[in-house]
Amino acid sequence: MSNLLIRNVRIMDGDAADIRIRDGVIADIAPELEPGDAETVDGGGHIAIPALVDAHTHLDKSLLGLPWYKNDVGGGSLIGMIENERRIKRALDYDAHVQSMRHALRTVAYGGTMIRSHVDIDTEGGLRALEGVQQTAEKLAQVVEIETVAFPQSGLMIREGTAELMDRALEMGAHLVGGLDPCAVDRDPKGHLDTIFALAEKHGKGIDIHLHEGGEMGLFSMDMILERTEALDMKGMVTISHAFCLGMPDFRRVDAMLGRLAALDVAIMTTAPSSSPAPLVRELDARGIRIGAGNDGFQDTWGPYGNGDMLERAKVVGQRNNLRMDSEVKRALDICTGGGAVAMGKPRFALETGAPGDLVLVSGDTVVQSVVSHAPRKLVVKAGRVVARDGKTLIDAP
Amino acid sequence: MSNLLIRNVRIMDGDAADIRIRDGVIADIAPELEPGDAETVDGGGHIAIPALVDAHTHLDKSLLGLPWYKNDVGGGSLIGMIENERRIKRALDYDAHVQSMRHALRTVAYGGTMIRSHVDIDTEGGLRALEGVQQTAEKLAQVVEIETVAFPQSGLMIREGTAELMDRALEMGAHLVGGLDPCAVDRDPKGHLDTIFALAEKHGKGIDIHLHEGGEMGLFSMDMILERTEALDMKGMVTISHAFCLGMPDFRRVDAMLGRLAALDVAIMTTAPSSSPAPLVRELDARGIRIGAGNDGFQDTWGPYGNGDMLERAKVVGQRNNLRMDSEVKRALDICTGGGAVAMGKPRFALETGAPGDLVLVSGDTVVQSVVSHAPRKLVVKAGRVVARDGKTLIDAP
Repeated sequence: MSNLLIRNVRIMDGDAADIRIRDGVIADIAPELEPGDAETVDGGGHIAIPALVDAHTHLDKSLLGLPWYKNDVGGGSLIGMIENERRIKRALDYDAHVQSMRHALRTVAYGGTMIRSHVDIDTEGGLRALEGVQQTAEKLAQVVEIETVAFPQSGLMIREGTAELMDRALEMGAHLVGGLDPCAVDRDPKGHLDTIFALAEKHGKGIDIHLHEGGEMGLFSMDMILERTEALDMKGMVTISHAFCLGMPDFRRVDAMLGRLAALDVAIMTTAPSSSPAPLVRELDARGIRIGAGNDGFQDTWGPYGNGDMLERAKVVGQRNNLRMDSEVKRALDICTGGGAVAMGKPRFALETGAPGDLVLVSGDTVVQSVVSHAPRKLVVKAGRVVARDGKTLIDAP
Repeated sequence: MSNLLIRNVRIMDGDAADIRIRDGVIADIAPELEPGDAETVDGGGHIAIPALVDAHTHLDKSLLGLPWYKNDVGGGSLIGMIENERRIKRALDYDAHVQSMRHALRTVAYGGTMIRSHVDIDTEGGLRALEGVQQTAEKLAQVVEIETVAFPQSGLMIREGTAELMDRALEMGAHLVGGLDPCAVDRDPKGHLDTIFALAEKHGKGIDIHLHEGGEMGLFSMDMILERTEALDMKGMVTISHAFCLGMPDFRRVDAMLGRLAALDVAIMTTAPSSSPAPLVRELDARGIRIGAGNDGFQDTWGPYGNGDMLERAKVVGQRNNLRMDSEVKRALDICTGGGAVAMGKPRFALETGAPGDLVLVSGDTVVQSVVSHAPRKLVVKAGRVVARDGKTLIDAP
């Protein structure tokens, strides 16, 4: 097991210290620790922050490393974008293992050591995407923890056979049951939600459902999700991703829903989008709701943006929520590090004894300055193992 | 005068060519041009785009190069942020010349060769900020064109003596008359607007007014601005910066206003903010309204974000407006290059014969890929003079 001593780092904005990680866990943080038989690395006085967590992405969508995809579809229609993706992937003979390796290692290079990835399950691709991502998760097990969500991207009730594939995906080891806009895409909220909650119950797994539906429609779907969460005693086991409806202007409606989300300990994952309403950090924090953040897919058929950098995402979260104080920007960072792990139901990444040995060294004068400039990553450590240096992973991407 | 031949570049996503710039203007674009007596630089096959334009910033606010400013004020109150800035600048004995040099040269390093800067005019700082920025504009005249707006940041009607200082600022050469939230800050829209339009009339100069006011209040102020624009025959001479009210949900109200803005050829400058309503590119384009973009102040007492990179701003504009198609992202870029120059009432930067000799070489596979990755700048050319290479200006910042 790991036995690593990182010398001479600044603990967030605090004093210089050494960090000892033993058996994957932070064993000691203090100045001038004795190396003993530990592998020793010089931290160069850089700032140590907890490792980054991408709590919402799609490892099976990126076109990284392929010729530039010229997008002429745009964002007008969700169904149109879904169909376009299937068409392009078919034409490219898309290899989910190779692409998920590229995507995951890019994330690691930026300091991400934990990823929750939705993986398309549909009657066209079958379980191939999941197989490819699982292969990547296994190969990179010592580099980045990858959690998979069986995600019915093309719809569940509208494509016969998808529920059975989801069932097999969960048997194969997908960690969570996914879902997608039960009204807008499936046009059968009862059927969609009954199906995914039944799968969750059968397999004893949690749920992470995409909910892009806005305003009252989104609140209606959310209400039906919460009914089932309560009825099946799934407190703490449900995540709602995007949850755009929580950004609707009628705050009385939103706040009532936030109270119910808090009571059932439902986690919210956000990309902090700039072009749509979104759950707001201050409002969710006031209710103590767990929040994670994600890059979502990047450089895929959906759009050209993004790069896998969750430190840059912390900046985006800060800007989206008008967080200007240093203390607020640090909360945005927390959502992309320890808070994101907690939102995933995992132990909090933190720079303290007993926490997971997952951390990143970044250059910069202060933590906030590092966030706003998405400063270079000097060293990335996963469970006490060095996995990237100077923005490059030790394992090469295919 | 300049006589420059840039060999072997790609013209946007087009074919390889050479670019000749003579006397500050693009004289020829074709493969294998004869060098003659021109200074010759190798473009290395990089992508040439028109130079970037920051059409809305504050050169007299940045804290670049100073110790990190820990913000504990936040964004709750506009007046609070204004007062905090005055207090901090006093404590720092703020040097507007040095700071504006740092800010402007950072912009140039990223490929910006034209800047419109609002400059604080108030009864505390007097004309010192303008003097400092004018000194910078003069020193950098061959590097970046800097246009100044006399900006009553601390209020106009609520601080006696400010109008007289504005008058002197315009005599001193400030290019435009500024203004600020005539209802929300000055609480006297008639007084504020009558004053700034009288100054514009007296000096024969245009207006660029900050309008953060949202919803109906913003539309009311905008209505009063348009009344005066029409009455004083100032078609094409007025700019409204931010114009958050144009992002209000009631599109019938917005669209009626867009029609009037178009009729009076009022330009809109935006930062494409993610945390507030904002004018939307597609809607303004449908009316043919001139749009420029800006970084606004960065790393100042207002907030920690931003860096002076208008190519990154093009990405922000694209994301804020949900522009996913390559053609749409190129429009976002245009707003930050040639379109921004036009919004400022200047000749369009463009890669064509007769256009200003202001351009940037960026690395990347395609223009859109360069935008979304805010790719490294290899060469920056202002009016046929090389002013930055590999992200570094040829002149050092103080």
